Amino acid sequence: MRLVLASRAVSRNLADPLPATTDAEATEGPPPAPQAAPQAAPQAAAARPSHSPMHSPMHSIVLVGMPGAGKSAIGKRLAARLGLPFLDADTEIENAAGMTVAEIFARYGEAHFRDGERRVISRIAAGPPVVLATGGGAYADARTRRALREAGAVTVWLRADIPVLKRRIVGRSNRPLFIGRDPEEVLRGLMAARYPFYAEADLALDCGDDAPEVTTLRVERAILGWQRPARLPVALSTGAYEVVVGSGLLARAGGLLSPHLPSRRVAVVSDASVAALHLPTLRAGLAESGIDLCAEILVPPGEGSKRMTMLEEVLEGLLAGGTDRKTTVIALGGGVVGDLAGFAAAVALRGLPFVQVPTTLLSQVDSSVGGKTGVNLRAGKNLAGAFHQPRIVLADTDTLATLPRRELRAGWGEVAKHGLLQGPLWEWCEAQGPAAMAGDPEALRHAVLESCRLKAGVVVADEREEAPEGGRALLNLGHTFAHALEAECGYDGTLLHGEAVAVGLGLAASLSARLGHCSQEWPGRVIEHLATVGLPARLCDLPRGFSAEALLGRMRKDKKVRDGAMRFVLMRGAGAAFTTADVPPDTVEALLRDEGAT
Amino acid sequence: MRLVLASRAVSRNLADPLPATTDAEATEGPPPAPQAAPQAAPQAAAARPSHSPMHSPMHSIVLVGMPGAGKSAIGKRLAARLGLPFLDADTEIENAAGMTVAEIFARYGEAHFRDGERRVISRIAAGPPVVLATGGGAYADARTRRALREAGAVTVWLRADIPVLKRRIVGRSNRPLFIGRDPEEVLRGLMAARYPFYAEADLALDCGDDAPEVTTLRVERAILGWQRPARLPVALSTGAYEVVVGSGLLARAGGLLSPHLPSRRVAVVSDASVAALHLPTLRAGLAESGIDLCAEILVPPGEGSKRMTMLEEVLEGLLAGGTDRKTTVIALGGGVVGDLAGFAAAVALRGLPFVQVPTTLLSQVDSSVGGKTGVNLRAGKNLAGAFHQPRIVLADTDTLATLPRRELRAGWGEVAKHGLLQGPLWEWCEAQGPAAMAGDPEALRHAVLESCRLKAGVVVADEREEAPEGGRALLNLGHTFAHALEAECGYDGTLLHGEAVAVGLGLAASLSARLGHCSQEWPGRVIEHLATVGLPARLCDLPRGFSAEALLGRMRKDKKVRDGAMRFVLMRGAGAAFTTADVPPDTVEALLRDEGAT
Repeated sequence: MRLVLASRAVSRNLADPLPATTDAEATEGPPPAPQAAPQAAPQAAAARPSHSPMHSPMHSIVLVGMPGAGKSAIGKRLAARLGLPFLDADTEIENAAGMTVAEIFARYGEAHFRDGERRVISRIAAGPPVVLATGGGAYADARTRRALREAGAVTVWLRADIPVLKRRIVGRSNRPLFIGRDPEEVLRGLMAARYPFYAEADLALDCGDDAPEVTTLRVERAILGWQRPARLPVALSTGAYEVVVGSGLLARAGGLLSPHLPSRRVAVVSDASVAALHLPTLRAGLAESGIDLCAEILVPPGEGSKRMTMLEEVLEGLLAGGTDRKTTVIALGGGVVGDLAGFAAAVALRGLPFVQVPTTLLSQVDSSVGGKTGVNLRAGKNLAGAFHQPRIVLADTDTLATLPRRELRAGWGEVAKHGLLQGPLWEWCEAQGPAAMAGDPEALRHAVLESCRLKAGVVVADEREEAPEGGRALLNLGHTFAHALEAECGYDGTLLHGEAVAVGLGLAASLSARLGHCSQEWPGRVIEHLATVGLPARLCDLPRGFSAEALLGRMRKDKKVRDGAMRFVLMRGAGAAFTTADVPPDTVEALLRDEGAT
Repeated sequence: MRLVLASRAVSRNLADPLPATTDAEATEGPPPAPQAAPQAAPQAAAARPSHSPMHSPMHSIVLVGMPGAGKSAIGKRLAARLGLPFLDADTEIENAAGMTVAEIFARYGEAHFRDGERRVISRIAAGPPVVLATGGGAYADARTRRALREAGAVTVWLRADIPVLKRRIVGRSNRPLFIGRDPEEVLRGLMAARYPFYAEADLALDCGDDAPEVTTLRVERAILGWQRPARLPVALSTGAYEVVVGSGLLARAGGLLSPHLPSRRVAVVSDASVAALHLPTLRAGLAESGIDLCAEILVPPGEGSKRMTMLEEVLEGLLAGGTDRKTTVIALGGGVVGDLAGFAAAVALRGLPFVQVPTTLLSQVDSSVGGKTGVNLRAGKNLAGAFHQPRIVLADTDTLATLPRRELRAGWGEVAKHGLLQGPLWEWCEAQGPAAMAGDPEALRHAVLESCRLKAGVVVADEREEAPEGGRALLNLGHTFAHALEAECGYDGTLLHGEAVAVGLGLAASLSARLGHCSQEWPGRVIEHLATVGLPARLCDLPRGFSAEALLGRMRKDKKVRDGAMRFVLMRGAGAAFTTADVPPDTVEALLRDEGAT
């Protein structure tokens, strides 16, 4: 969410703050600050009548960067503008130790100093909000970074180039690291060592030779415009990971991923279309943290890449690139790339760490969460694969702006499904679906976050799809029909998965009503919403005809239906879906025929 | 081990019983009866000086089978011959209940009767040894079977055909299931329902129309000649499984596997050579328990089948055969089949239950235990795969009799490695290696069991090969050299893996001595033993030359060596191996050159 600072800042800079959404629950650590007004404020507010305003305490602003970057000069001015106290970490340490930083270094060494520095900074960050300027080495310490993250501080990296830094530090005698050495050489060494860690800061700003007042304004504006990515924990028995949802995540990929990688070495699997749009940003984001990108493997876009021979090519590509057991495989793309790259990660060297960077609405709301990976066989879709959970999922909602409209809409099929499974989310879908499909970033962010929340909850309760009733199978609402429709269309792109799901949701609601499980109002309501967002919701909405017999034949062979009877997910209403095998085939056939199947 | 009955039987039938080996520790449940003299008694005894005799109490003999099979008639005679009391379960139940079986059925129903039956049989089996005849339905009850297994009872299925059974039951009015019905029809129904469970009995004997005295003698002989398979538990964090080592396991596969399968439906993966020798036996063994063999997938023999395209074919074969999520994949064959089928099981439908039935010495002592599965890539061996633990491993040592001599010897390379890792097993190898290589079944059984025991211990301590030092990496003793030698030979069959391991062991011992880790006596001792069993142990034993530079290049690219330095497993003596990266490349090169590399 957007970060809003103390009341003075708000009153000076922003419109009325919006009530915070339940996003608050998604963040780790302390509750976030209240939210700034998103672009779609009026509709969004209307759609969230049940949430009461939440005025959390705001958090400290922590400035990090090289010596000479201007942390103190800007920090003091920023604190004054925001009405917060300003503290300098080095001064606080000196006060606590009763000696200068130079003396601590000389007498006890750097390790001792960093230890004290971490304690002092942690204490300040955990207290009331301040603007804190840190020593140049503070944020290079992993424990200090973690303490700041956990305290919910907003970390800002003030970045300046060597000539600027050099001019500012020359002649200052109180910097122990520079005494008696060539400042440029020292700066280069420090930059190489520290920039990968600075890159983990929440914000990075390039500070040139502008007057401190000018830079301060830019920093203030960046902080006020910044929206903290939501972090949704997925707590599995085999370990927890986070789904991070927000804007600008690709550019910050290095900093976001670093704490979760076993080594700063990754391989990216993507497809040619996505790579053209987003790989340069990801590459730069990784480079900023000094992450070695040992292989970039691009597969052809489309479902056709989800096959064993492509898996083999990806595996050979990973190994040829020098992948070792600590190399993390990053999937950058939609569901096909995620499923294929995840499967490759699961089996390369018998299991490599894996990261999902979904770039389509469908993959952000569905396939990137849950750990299912795989490829298709001649015998059917997704018949070979592995459960392989990612270390982290980065759902950068900015990537949705580059999606073809039809793909964006198709993704909404799964969002609507999650709405029907969850309950209140369905009403939000009805209210906000059109805004989301028009590209409203806040609506899309909410759709992604709440979909992931719903899905994560279901997955955590049934990790390997072993629950006899309910469990992960509920996520197949509409899918028994959808799989049959897709199979009939031959996966040739005439019917996208999300479109098939939309028709499947319409049919599942109709079937539920026919069997008396839900009121007759539901099919109409589901179909109307899907139609409103531009999705097909009935068989007759599709550009081709279907044979009822053929569809029933497909449904009887669905892999979830192996024990003989067709299994369906039906609904008693939004938030009340259930699995059942107790569905008379005649009723299904009659429905299909009434809907226009021959 | 062989089962020896009470003293009277022993004195009449057998030579002096041998001290039991540590095999006793491998069995589950109560300790087994003392062992009969194996064929290789003198040597075997000489090699096990440390084991003291163990006279366990013997266990009950429990006769199961259809009504009319002769359980009472033979049981009484058998008891008399063995000097044991005879009990009839139905009579015991009637005594306990104070009414006849027919009355219990009539008044309380079958479920109530089975419940009482199970309690009475469990009590008897847990008490002092007897010969017990059970009612025909008793052994069809899963809990009764488990109670008998856990009590260590020897269960004997007396099998007779319908004409025989019909003649015997006609006119007996006290069998409630037959009253007022066509006996043949009742018998057919009972057979269909019960035979799959009877097949879980330890022994099965066909009983015709011979006089009871004759059949009794045959039953007695079968029991005395029977050797209980050793059961070695592998207790992993994800669940425990057993390695069963013994004779005649393929023919009893159905009964041995049934308790471990989620459904009576399996698919077998094998290679053409192994299938010709052993698939008919396995097929019959499975059929006896009513297990549906939905697919038999045969791959070409040899390392060439361990590739992705073959994996795809196996997967398509599994799915085309109608494999569902409860279908178990059985690997029947050597390491190639086990690795390939295990990988297929790991990824088909994202994970199917898996059973290893290794038929080579190499796979019985090594690859079938530990859960490593996979295929080769262009970039190297075993680079794609999964950790996928079997539900059970059936190591039928009878299959070793059909192995080509060279393959049997190659398997000994891994046995010798396990000996060097374990300690006392090395001395046993030196004493018994020649007997084993001459095909002595008892020596082979011991080699397999003790190798599995060593390997299981290592695997349990480091399931996913994550220990930084020691752990599973110790199993690579000799393998850094072996992998380089194999790679140089191009895996074309000129150098078998076990042969490469043998040379690797010789080199590892020599390297250990050169670096001062072990005495100078060790290299000679290792090389001498390997030569004695007919294995190459030095570079000069191989029919081709090697370049030291090429071998060193391979060793530097070994996948265990990714972090830069070559890693070796070295030894301070038998039972004292360790992993180290502290090996000067010059020393390795000098060793290779001294051993004849150019």
